[in-house]
Amino acid sequence: MPRILFSAPPELWAEYRAPLARAFGEAGIAVEVTTETGDPAAIDYVVFAPRGGISDFTPFTGAKAVLSLWAGVETVVGNPTLTQPLCRMVDAGLEEGMVEWVTGHVLRHHLGIDRYIRADGPHWDKRVPPLARDRTVTVLGLGELGRACAEALAALRFRVLGWSRTARSVVGVECHHGKDGLRPVLERAEIVVLLLPRTPETEGLIDAERLSWLPQGAVLLNPGRGALLDETAVLAALDAGRLGHATLDVFRVEPLPPDHPFWAHPRVTVTPHIASETRPASAARVIAENVRRSEAGEPLLFRVDRARGY
Amino acid sequence: MPRILFSAPPELWAEYRAPLARAFGEAGIAVEVTTETGDPAAIDYVVFAPRGGISDFTPFTGAKAVLSLWAGVETVVGNPTLTQPLCRMVDAGLEEGMVEWVTGHVLRHHLGIDRYIRADGPHWDKRVPPLARDRTVTVLGLGELGRACAEALAALRFRVLGWSRTARSVVGVECHHGKDGLRPVLERAEIVVLLLPRTPETEGLIDAERLSWLPQGAVLLNPGRGALLDETAVLAALDAGRLGHATLDVFRVEPLPPDHPFWAHPRVTVTPHIASETRPASAARVIAENVRRSEAGEPLLFRVDRARGY
Repeated sequence: MPRILFSAPPELWAEYRAPLARAFGEAGIAVEVTTETGDPAAIDYVVFAPRGGISDFTPFTGAKAVLSLWAGVETVVGNPTLTQPLCRMVDAGLEEGMVEWVTGHVLRHHLGIDRYIRADGPHWDKRVPPLARDRTVTVLGLGELGRACAEALAALRFRVLGWSRTARSVVGVECHHGKDGLRPVLERAEIVVLLLPRTPETEGLIDAERLSWLPQGAVLLNPGRGALLDETAVLAALDAGRLGHATLDVFRVEPLPPDHPFWAHPRVTVTPHIASETRPASAARVIAENVRRSEAGEPLLFRVDRARGY
Repeated sequence: MPRILFSAPPELWAEYRAPLARAFGEAGIAVEVTTETGDPAAIDYVVFAPRGGISDFTPFTGAKAVLSLWAGVETVVGNPTLTQPLCRMVDAGLEEGMVEWVTGHVLRHHLGIDRYIRADGPHWDKRVPPLARDRTVTVLGLGELGRACAEALAALRFRVLGWSRTARSVVGVECHHGKDGLRPVLERAEIVVLLLPRTPETEGLIDAERLSWLPQGAVLLNPGRGALLDETAVLAALDAGRLGHATLDVFRVEPLPPDHPFWAHPRVTVTPHIASETRPASAARVIAENVRRSEAGEPLLFRVDRARGY
């Protein structure tokens, strides 16, 4: 019977214990899921989240895969002791949550909803926003999440531009790629959504120069990775009016420290890294499916390419 | 050459003059569009908006149709002097605007965005909303606008219930109808969207009894007609917590009077009748198409059924 080590902070065990049992039961696989390492060589699979206690994967000599609970694997992918196959989480719930956060905040900025929420007295100003078909939204990153968001925005009739490292094609989206493709999509962006992975190439990508390519008053949404932003440049662009607003879900340090200037800035909205939260029920089914595949000799889902870093 | 009277407040003439000229030009119809009645018997078509000066249609003995600039025709449909065919405006831009307002405000309440917009200091509370697939939204009214909104919400994976006077069917939407169908859709509604026409049957429909059928804390969105609400009952339901929030775009008196309690209520958002604004470019094309049809002996688009009232 495969022995599965659940290596994650204790509060996650409370959330995942029952959904994992249910998912393995539904998949028809008898396994032992434990939080006690015991003999590391006897562990067949590691379900992994940061801060679960593992920093050295060397002793897990029999492990057939390390299955991340999260979509982002940058804290573990560079670990030189990790030689086992590594899989990211691609949870339908996680993707749906991201699509909902992105479409909700794009529509909020598109419609100018904040004006009505913050109003503290009578107002009757019938200014109407343009239709979505006349509003350009640029999505940087066209992986699973970026593609899903771009498609949802296009279905709402936004004019969607997409950008990715290598060429991609998404129905209803004008796709650009590579170094030369970035400037044209930023120059037209009224709303920019960052859904790039964190890699050495994307670290600090949104810097003073890239921000200067945006139209005056553009809105920045970052539900991707905190490290994509040069925070000093973002604050300067907000103060200069180049950026009209920034709605940020991810940060270089989380929780965002109480004295961070993002908290107090009148044109920054902070959400606490909730855009794409793994939901235990659906994530447990992905873990069970990957164990089933591995045991059946089938290829793993969502295996990480170490060279790319995601 | 058909003579078309544009009967609407002067500020609309400024907005519509050029788009109408462009639309008739594109349609290849030579017409004279005027704001001067002159001899009423010589007018072939009346483009109509309330407060344009016409209350008696009797002198327009030669008019082949009255073409409303707005979707709602309740202020004119009961006018006994109006014996000419009456057409509502069904403008693609108007429908798209409504879909954007409805999906934007549904997502805003679904995601609990107000909490982050109103936050006035550090907060890091990682409560995550349910997925849209686990959120029930009820749409009352399945005409053009209600159907378009219900479909857009279903495409975003909300669990959508629809209700209409007579039986309708909308893909992805659980449809109910008639008097007996109303209670079941309200009892399950976490968010209710009102898109019914104003008729004697819908006047004051959302009263204390209907509000008592909703789950505790439900959210009410009214982009339909102000008269659908019993305002006193809505305020009482907000104060009792039966309603968690009301976001209202239409009112019995507009502009909403400065001393109206909706302005000051902490759980009411007022938007100034902007959910579905006719955009001149697309509306002018509808007017031109109906004149073209009438002149060619083809049936008019969007002709109002006087008995139903819409």
